[in-house]
Amino acid sequence: MIVKNELLGYPRYIIYQDPAMFNFSLDSILLADFVRIKKGVKNIIDLGSGNGAILIYLTLKTNAQLYGIEIIKKSYELGLKSIKENLLDKQITTINDDILNARSLFANDFDAVVCNPPFFKYLPTSNVNKNDYLTIARHEVKITLEQIIAVSFSLLKNGGSLFLIHRPERLVDILLLLEKNRLEPKRIRFVYPKENSKANHVLIEATKLGKAGNVKVLKPLYVYNNGKWTDEVLNMYNLGR
Amino acid sequence: MIVKNELLGYPRYIIYQDPAMFNFSLDSILLADFVRIKKGVKNIIDLGSGNGAILIYLTLKTNAQLYGIEIIKKSYELGLKSIKENLLDKQITTINDDILNARSLFANDFDAVVCNPPFFKYLPTSNVNKNDYLTIARHEVKITLEQIIAVSFSLLKNGGSLFLIHRPERLVDILLLLEKNRLEPKRIRFVYPKENSKANHVLIEATKLGKAGNVKVLKPLYVYNNGKWTDEVLNMYNLGR
Repeated sequence: MIVKNELLGYPRYIIYQDPAMFNFSLDSILLADFVRIKKGVKNIIDLGSGNGAILIYLTLKTNAQLYGIEIIKKSYELGLKSIKENLLDKQITTINDDILNARSLFANDFDAVVCNPPFFKYLPTSNVNKNDYLTIARHEVKITLEQIIAVSFSLLKNGGSLFLIHRPERLVDILLLLEKNRLEPKRIRFVYPKENSKANHVLIEATKLGKAGNVKVLKPLYVYNNGKWTDEVLNMYNLGR
Repeated sequence: MIVKNELLGYPRYIIYQDPAMFNFSLDSILLADFVRIKKGVKNIIDLGSGNGAILIYLTLKTNAQLYGIEIIKKSYELGLKSIKENLLDKQITTINDDILNARSLFANDFDAVVCNPPFFKYLPTSNVNKNDYLTIARHEVKITLEQIIAVSFSLLKNGGSLFLIHRPERLVDILLLLEKNRLEPKRIRFVYPKENSKANHVLIEATKLGKAGNVKVLKPLYVYNNGKWTDEVLNMYNLGR
């Protein structure tokens, strides 16, 4: 079943989704919002672009050429349909392929890579179906964080940035892998579901061959306040109005 | 010049300070507050215990034996004077020595190590006086973070925890060094001077030979609200009342 929705907060855009698959969620807009568009940015790629939600959101803040790569054919096709219907196919190009092939499919001159990767490690004891769509989006069955970070390094031009959303439980892991792959963390922002809660997401910007030792931990991002979205999240959703 | 002050918020304790030296500050209480006293904790050591402020605060939350090591003789002596005058010399033992000698001075069975280390890297170009008290407390002239972490690992028993306060700019560095020294981060809390500010301190608990991959990023700690201390900080200062 495919559902045609308005892109939340942006009634001029629609987005196709399949409720049985991994759907765009708050993560997409948090990441799109976190992306800094530096002067002169020409091209950005979304690794694992799903149904295109992040790419569509990014058109609201940049005129750069946008690319996406998505391994799941059904997600890719839904994205294609949304992109065409929104008349964004001149700005957005997506392909249906494995991120692990991205190095041979794209030139290594991206200004920015964005990625909302699978959050959970895949262990032989993980009780998951390796071919299930949701499993692929959530667990590292097709690709690991280390592979994503290595591919990002290759695709970025020097000084280009990787923008990542992930779980705070993986923070040490993430920072070690970025360091190993010479992507230097520059900005970190923690996302808290509400006041007095532990963080449940982390947003990280890391720069290829950047200068070490000066990461900034930005003000906290709260999602809910008294059961309602905070003004900051509401503003993200209304950016395009 | 030596000044005798009430320990802020705890009029039953006094503390001696020399305004020309490194004085206890909010950092001390933030760190003392962050320390988790697990059941059965027998002994805790403060590396670089200065004038004893953290140790004195810790007596308010634990009956464990407390130890301190301080390289600057004047600071050590001020601490001794405060500890004696507060009648805490049965619970607190401090020595005047270099942290680098701690391994040969103490047994390696500590339940916890606490440390408010020098925050700034020492570079040959750093325009500082290497023998100045303030420089020693603030810059890594006598000891580096890596050395402190290595000493902490040696002093801790398996499962014991290091509690550290530092600057967020050094976060990547800190996590890499902890990882290298098999101290596994368990809790991280960022301190923000006020709402809408970047973090200016970070508190970290790391466990010797702990299980990897499950660090918690606790709720933010705000210091000021509309120019006044927040309730949380006020409560820290009133813990003993």
